[in-house]
Amino acid sequence: MQKPALPKGTRDFLPDEVIRRNYIFQILKSVFSIHGFVPIETPSLELMQSLTGKYGEEGDRLLFKILNSGNFLEDIDPQDWQSGNAHKIAASIAKRGLRYDLTVPLARFVVMNRDKISFPFKRYQIQPVWRADRPQKGRYQEFYQCDCDVIGSKSLWYEADLISIYSEVFSKLQIPVEIKINHRGILMGMAEALDIGPLFIPMTMCIDKLDKIGSEKVKADLIALSLTPEKADALLHWIQIKEIAELPAAVLSSPSGAKAYQDLQRIMEYTVRYELKQDVVFDPSLARGLSYYTGFIVEVKGKNMDMGSLGGGGRYDNLTGSFGLPDIPGVGISFGAERIYDIMESHQLFPTGLRNPLKVLVICLDDAAFGSGLEMVISARAAGISTDLYPEVVKLNKSMKYANDLKIPYTILIGSSELESNNYSFKNMMTGIQESKSKQAILDFLLSDIH
Amino acid sequence: MQKPALPKGTRDFLPDEVIRRNYIFQILKSVFSIHGFVPIETPSLELMQSLTGKYGEEGDRLLFKILNSGNFLEDIDPQDWQSGNAHKIAASIAKRGLRYDLTVPLARFVVMNRDKISFPFKRYQIQPVWRADRPQKGRYQEFYQCDCDVIGSKSLWYEADLISIYSEVFSKLQIPVEIKINHRGILMGMAEALDIGPLFIPMTMCIDKLDKIGSEKVKADLIALSLTPEKADALLHWIQIKEIAELPAAVLSSPSGAKAYQDLQRIMEYTVRYELKQDVVFDPSLARGLSYYTGFIVEVKGKNMDMGSLGGGGRYDNLTGSFGLPDIPGVGISFGAERIYDIMESHQLFPTGLRNPLKVLVICLDDAAFGSGLEMVISARAAGISTDLYPEVVKLNKSMKYANDLKIPYTILIGSSELESNNYSFKNMMTGIQESKSKQAILDFLLSDIH
Repeated sequence: MQKPALPKGTRDFLPDEVIRRNYIFQILKSVFSIHGFVPIETPSLELMQSLTGKYGEEGDRLLFKILNSGNFLEDIDPQDWQSGNAHKIAASIAKRGLRYDLTVPLARFVVMNRDKISFPFKRYQIQPVWRADRPQKGRYQEFYQCDCDVIGSKSLWYEADLISIYSEVFSKLQIPVEIKINHRGILMGMAEALDIGPLFIPMTMCIDKLDKIGSEKVKADLIALSLTPEKADALLHWIQIKEIAELPAAVLSSPSGAKAYQDLQRIMEYTVRYELKQDVVFDPSLARGLSYYTGFIVEVKGKNMDMGSLGGGGRYDNLTGSFGLPDIPGVGISFGAERIYDIMESHQLFPTGLRNPLKVLVICLDDAAFGSGLEMVISARAAGISTDLYPEVVKLNKSMKYANDLKIPYTILIGSSELESNNYSFKNMMTGIQESKSKQAILDFLLSDIH
Repeated sequence: MQKPALPKGTRDFLPDEVIRRNYIFQILKSVFSIHGFVPIETPSLELMQSLTGKYGEEGDRLLFKILNSGNFLEDIDPQDWQSGNAHKIAASIAKRGLRYDLTVPLARFVVMNRDKISFPFKRYQIQPVWRADRPQKGRYQEFYQCDCDVIGSKSLWYEADLISIYSEVFSKLQIPVEIKINHRGILMGMAEALDIGPLFIPMTMCIDKLDKIGSEKVKADLIALSLTPEKADALLHWIQIKEIAELPAAVLSSPSGAKAYQDLQRIMEYTVRYELKQDVVFDPSLARGLSYYTGFIVEVKGKNMDMGSLGGGGRYDNLTGSFGLPDIPGVGISFGAERIYDIMESHQLFPTGLRNPLKVLVICLDDAAFGSGLEMVISARAAGISTDLYPEVVKLNKSMKYANDLKIPYTILIGSSELESNNYSFKNMMTGIQESKSKQAILDFLLSDIH
């Protein structure tokens, strides 16, 4: 006899949690759908050759690998065993792995299905991903990602449209947010203005940490990168400017900066037409670590919430290059469903009516009532009302406790006196008020009740 | 540069396929929900100790195992390596595996969450499972299971209610089916009547093959089990009887047979009250291979369809015993979503309106029209109409081809003459009819159109 347990970093979802999570997913799907995005799904399993090398060294380490079927020992080169080469042995005995994100599978999907889809291809995808990260509060080894991307167009209108999707989704979820935007070209323009172009990538990685470690430490890191203190100061000053037009001409007229400035102005021209309910702000310190972004970048933060980003995204030039199809541009955003869930829980933002849809429980007080009880249940369900029958005749407090535990709003009691009068006892479980009603009167009431 | 590929036995789902699959899942969820079932989800990853030994030797072989993180070589006992003990090495280097079905995770879930749920616990679960089976037509290594079970009650009403769920789901899907029912006690009663009780399990496994191999071969198999030819003939005759009351008294009055007869009569009494649209038939040859069933069993076959079962289930006495919680009864059914999808495709049972919800594409004929085009899109979406904008000014046949490829029913063309007249060209892509309409007239039309 074993004590049951779950692998670390994984979770069971109870009915109320599934219903609440689906509420979030449903809002995402409805907004994606109104904006012309369609769903795709990819398998949980991918070939390791599709995954390895796509997420950096750290990412490779965090990939879940699936042991080959059959006698996997035959796949091991004895020399690798002798030399204890775990890396090479893993590559031999595990040809498949679990999806690490939705972006690499999208790239593979687009290349493999390019004859079946039309470009611009607008897809959304809401599926779990797996990472062998050290589990901690709010971080799991299996969690959902929710992405929407437009593949195959350079139009900057999509940037504005994706910003509007962020705004609409978070407004529907009742989470006030700040949508921060920037452009990799602004950061590149700063590097060009400071004549440190070759340091662009490590520079952005330093800047990315501003929120976490503060400007003092970022300055030290920049100097460690060989920037002079003056250049580090200039950079730190620039990335804290709130209005794009206030950036120095040296940045805005540099080759990369000029293009980025033009792009961002165009994006904002489109964006203002949407009359969004959420704030969109320019933030030149926004860097987005992922190196595949090449243009516009975006990140969403909850207002007055001590929590990381609720979503992020950007434009990329070469999504599918590593799968043999170069020069396919794209732009996309992602939603952090787990964090959104946590915020909605802690701020009590889920609608109160969100729960088990079961609306009424029929309780038979003796065996003779069972036939009428069953008839009541069948009629109510036929009318579209989620209804159940307590399956046995038990003490009333036991069946009533069941109705209360499941938060069922109404019960119908049927015993000998109800059978005689042909009127059932109909109880509102919230108010405790019990009335005698005909079957039809109960059905009419339940159908009109939007409780 | 690598040629992208998928692991064998896995699939990408294109938008139309996802939409069609979701149509099936949505019908399942709505029927489950009306009947008072609530959703749960469990992680894809389970501890191998939860999975191993639950599915027989064959099942153990088909489990997907996840390589431990970090240096898994340290987990190998060198003696196991010397002796080439793949089985023991696998157990050492893979502590986790992928879910093989939804029943074992349900058992683990019920035990671990028993303080958070109320019994009878009615849950449904629609999630993928993984089996390292040899892939073939219609059989995949990653596929969805759709289960609904009632845990913690012996009431036979649930049997009838689950039968009604089968009937409602397949009626809504427009698939005519035959719902075959039986009871393990009927088969046990036959064994008792023939005085071959100890051979019950192998006997049911022989009977289970009747459909596939025919009665001649089943008879040979039964004789190989040590039945006399007379007993084998009697058994073969009995399992082809269509009316339960026509079974011989020796079966119906045997200890197991009597109880089963009573159960089935009660279940049918409940079932007839539902006035189901699908046929429910008694079939004593129905055996259901799974050894955990102990009472009522059920299986659904498409009528006039050359295809295996579309679903099956039954009652079990001891779901959670192997996780340390004995004597919890349950009854449940499962839907074969992949086969249902294949049938609906081949019989063209999906509603014609089921597709990309995008209803209208706005096409700008020159750059000056882009502002008005964007406004049109924003207004239509605000009215709840799934709308998109072709993102660039291109040759009209290119944007029109895009609309046709995506099967978008309407397009709105805006160029200089449309801007001047303030009436847009509104085209029905099915009929080819193009009209000049004001923005508001277009919105009114689209809102009233249920196309």
